[in-house]
Amino acid sequence: MTSPKSLHGVNYAPITMTSTKSLHGVNYAPPRSFGTVLKANLKETLFPDDPFHEFKNEKLSIRILKGIQYFVPIFQWLPKYNLGLFKYDLLSGITIASLAIPQGISYAKLGDLPPIIGLYSSFVPPLIYAIFGSSRHLAVGTVATCSMLIAETIQQKVKPQENMPLYLSLFYTATLVSGLVQTALGVLRLGFLVDFLSHSTITGFMGGTALVICLQQLKGMLGLKHFTSHTDVVHVLRALFENRKEVGKLSKGINPPSLHLLNFSPEYISVAVKAGIITAIISLAEGIAIGRSFSILDNEQIDGNKEMIAIGLMNIVGSFTSCYLTTGPFSKTAVNHNAGCKSQMSNVVMSMCMLLTLLFLAPLFGYTPLVALSAIIMSAMLGLIDYEKAYHLYKTDKFDFLICMAAFFGVAFISMDMGLILSVGLALVRALLYVARPPTCKLGTITNTAFRDIEQYPGSNGTPGMLILKLGSPIYFPNSNYVRERILRWVRDEQSLANSKRNEIEYLLLEFGGVTSIDITGVETLFEVRRCLAATSIKMILINPRLGVMEKLIVTKFIDVIGKESVFLTIEDAIENCRFSLKCSSQSKSKNVEIA
Amino acid sequence: MTSPKSLHGVNYAPITMTSTKSLHGVNYAPPRSFGTVLKANLKETLFPDDPFHEFKNEKLSIRILKGIQYFVPIFQWLPKYNLGLFKYDLLSGITIASLAIPQGISYAKLGDLPPIIGLYSSFVPPLIYAIFGSSRHLAVGTVATCSMLIAETIQQKVKPQENMPLYLSLFYTATLVSGLVQTALGVLRLGFLVDFLSHSTITGFMGGTALVICLQQLKGMLGLKHFTSHTDVVHVLRALFENRKEVGKLSKGINPPSLHLLNFSPEYISVAVKAGIITAIISLAEGIAIGRSFSILDNEQIDGNKEMIAIGLMNIVGSFTSCYLTTGPFSKTAVNHNAGCKSQMSNVVMSMCMLLTLLFLAPLFGYTPLVALSAIIMSAMLGLIDYEKAYHLYKTDKFDFLICMAAFFGVAFISMDMGLILSVGLALVRALLYVARPPTCKLGTITNTAFRDIEQYPGSNGTPGMLILKLGSPIYFPNSNYVRERILRWVRDEQSLANSKRNEIEYLLLEFGGVTSIDITGVETLFEVRRCLAATSIKMILINPRLGVMEKLIVTKFIDVIGKESVFLTIEDAIENCRFSLKCSSQSKSKNVEIA
Repeated sequence: MTSPKSLHGVNYAPITMTSTKSLHGVNYAPPRSFGTVLKANLKETLFPDDPFHEFKNEKLSIRILKGIQYFVPIFQWLPKYNLGLFKYDLLSGITIASLAIPQGISYAKLGDLPPIIGLYSSFVPPLIYAIFGSSRHLAVGTVATCSMLIAETIQQKVKPQENMPLYLSLFYTATLVSGLVQTALGVLRLGFLVDFLSHSTITGFMGGTALVICLQQLKGMLGLKHFTSHTDVVHVLRALFENRKEVGKLSKGINPPSLHLLNFSPEYISVAVKAGIITAIISLAEGIAIGRSFSILDNEQIDGNKEMIAIGLMNIVGSFTSCYLTTGPFSKTAVNHNAGCKSQMSNVVMSMCMLLTLLFLAPLFGYTPLVALSAIIMSAMLGLIDYEKAYHLYKTDKFDFLICMAAFFGVAFISMDMGLILSVGLALVRALLYVARPPTCKLGTITNTAFRDIEQYPGSNGTPGMLILKLGSPIYFPNSNYVRERILRWVRDEQSLANSKRNEIEYLLLEFGGVTSIDITGVETLFEVRRCLAATSIKMILINPRLGVMEKLIVTKFIDVIGKESVFLTIEDAIENCRFSLKCSSQSKSKNVEIA
Repeated sequence: MTSPKSLHGVNYAPITMTSTKSLHGVNYAPPRSFGTVLKANLKETLFPDDPFHEFKNEKLSIRILKGIQYFVPIFQWLPKYNLGLFKYDLLSGITIASLAIPQGISYAKLGDLPPIIGLYSSFVPPLIYAIFGSSRHLAVGTVATCSMLIAETIQQKVKPQENMPLYLSLFYTATLVSGLVQTALGVLRLGFLVDFLSHSTITGFMGGTALVICLQQLKGMLGLKHFTSHTDVVHVLRALFENRKEVGKLSKGINPPSLHLLNFSPEYISVAVKAGIITAIISLAEGIAIGRSFSILDNEQIDGNKEMIAIGLMNIVGSFTSCYLTTGPFSKTAVNHNAGCKSQMSNVVMSMCMLLTLLFLAPLFGYTPLVALSAIIMSAMLGLIDYEKAYHLYKTDKFDFLICMAAFFGVAFISMDMGLILSVGLALVRALLYVARPPTCKLGTITNTAFRDIEQYPGSNGTPGMLILKLGSPIYFPNSNYVRERILRWVRDEQSLANSKRNEIEYLLLEFGGVTSIDITGVETLFEVRRCLAATSIKMILINPRLGVMEKLIVTKFIDVIGKESVFLTIEDAIENCRFSLKCSSQSKSKNVEIA
């Protein structure tokens, strides 16, 4: 085959062509072994951040040491710790402790728990986190949303005013379940499941929860009692207009053990498990996202899966010591960061402050008026309704806005879990639509080596006799029918266009660079497309199939069927070749049919 | 900017560069309106095959006529129908009728129904299909899998031997639900949901069902009665070794109406709905797939959504006339095709044969021995266990094989719906992994305009001071954390490699051609990556963002932040530009920092 040179008009830089041919033909290497592919895939799926990269090439003793330091970060930072750093941590630790006391009591109230449980929860978990946690800024504490959510779920079975010991034991059990789920997700490195809670969902969920909590707090501010455990706006407003009041009592002493209180009876375990699983994910989403955003500010990297293990462990231990679900709440972490914390030591300082409080001061806090607590909660909650973010979503992405609103209104008017389910469901529908309806586009020439979407760059030119399509996603069972229909529609559209002019399509060039993988159904689809094209004498050309795709095409014999002469490394190569036989076809039609 | 020419070494074809710059800069057109984007997306999602393309540009009267012909295909084929075609359809119609009688009786037995119901079901539905169906080859009839599946589900509530009228009414109700679901899916053009049943799932499911049915038929062949309604291998085998026999009785007359028998009482509706929904999807998967494969053989195109409406309508009407679930079974359709059918008329012929049978011959079939029926069923079933396909899956795609085996063993050893759920669940996990772990690769130069995956084409060269990455999927909430980690890992790996040599990375070039869309979370991820890179003085360059992505980047002000000078249309453009400032940097380091 000779490449026709023409200095005027389109320029087919011959050097490029030659070097492509000689040095780099299409790579038909035999498929990698199953083991190799599996290992590579597992690595990308479970260890995308390559967590052990720091000590990969060290000798055994160093690897063991670094391994221990990796899994128990306190061994990493404590040896280097000094008094200079401690000054900062002392200050920030005392600061977050002063926040932890009213918040702990308030959020325990939100969960209809005795206020002391809130204080307990700020004593043990921060110590555990200081040992296993890797974020320097994260401040451990309870969160309003999860306190509410566990309460709402458990109260489907047990009311606190009817049987407080049972209610409490189910709270501990739910916390244990959360801890186990979180640790398991971390150990199995399935942290990416948390990513399925999108920012939009979280924005809406937080806003909706904050709205409901604010309305509920009106009970505290107006001094009401016998309120409602329903968490939607209608119920809360109705209860608000029907009721009245009272104050709490706190006793001294540190966390009593609660291991013997855990309740696994078949009657109640289902609500505990449900509450545990949902809050495990939500509290992780908050804790991980916050740890990450602060570490990005300081250009450090956080291993999300390791953080999950730390958060999980602190909840497991917490459930044995009269604590309920804790994570890294945003407000507390921000305060910790602003107060200048330098290490996990600030959590230890907070914990020590809580110890002193529990031993000596707890009874005093018993007289904190509900009105004050409600004010504390409300001021924290109002900050969570993020109008600006919602408006930003509205301006930039209507579907994200819809996802956000589903969470907001779902939580506000139905219930917290329904709001979440609605919103995550919508987000998944969107993800599945991306999967089921991958974009394809027709490419035009903008320079002799650059081919771009004709819709985006309307100045680009088509190539006579050829249709160049770019496929941009895996081809597999959920989208293979669509991909076939879409390709055939492009061909049909092009043909009806071509009928009005004089040139017919003889080649369909499929740019496969964006097809990142293919399964059996996808390969069958290619066979079908080929059969349909053959019926109208259009030849199918593949361009630049990627590694994994090429392996599948070889092993399923698709390459044998279309022939290696129909696969090219670059679009310009393919055009060059096809143009050659197009030219032949204009001279002798019969010969062209023979080739096709 | 001047482009440095060097005739030896790498060739930077100056014509290309110049023409790119002048004629086609990056397209920063203002984002399309929400309405435009929504319309385009809805069209791709719901009308990917552009079903109305044939009469888009016609005048109103023709559009109405063609519209009627489109929705009721009998108006399309009947006017052109003639005696010559009828000869073929008569032959094939009689052929499939001769198959329909024993199969109808047998499959009704599989569902523990009176045998006559099976005959009824081959009379009315084929007539409806002949009016609304668009496939010329599809032969209507009951199928073994769905007969079993409805029976299994309904028998959780009602045993046929205890209350046959109730059992029958629930069968009709389930059929109505199926019909409604199918019609709704078609009208809402949600047919792509059926695609989520992959070929692998169907292969395994059919095989598992066939195995269970064969074992169950041993009861017929051995003349047993009081068998088991459980459908797993262990139960069936146990029942086989514990039991014994009897024969059926058929009365004359056509389908009695069954509209008044439909049962919507709250106690039973749940099983009917469950059975209806599951079998709606499964029977569609069979019917549509078969219609499609035969039409591909003849290079015709089938609108899956329209077929769903036809199948749905025939089941709705069927449920009013003592029929149960029908679809286009593979075996019958294949026979129809091989017997030379030319149009939907063959279904009408079959229906007429069934009419005669019901009026005059039905009592005779009452004496068909169970042993013979069992043999008929078994011979049909053994063909459904597709060893070769399973072996093919094993050789070509281990995950597809796993999906297939999950369905096979799930159906054989647990239950039909658990088998399906397991298999579809695995397939969805795979789809979600594609979503959550999109491939990225490092590009190397193979010619001066072609850049390819360095792993696939190990001969390709890196560019000093730059790292070129190709991202190959949407960037959105389920994968944005991964994309960030992965990009940072590429950078880290490259830096540790660069440290051993002497060149540092100053530019990260992200090839965005494969990023088909981006959401808010994705844009935030880009901001984060940029911040991390900035901390190590690496500049981020975007190459060829696609239409929708560019719109999002403009509206979220990301383009403003990185600056239009950091976005290029082609990799070679970007390299050219970056190389220019790299050269400066080698002369005066301070100036380079200023630029970066």
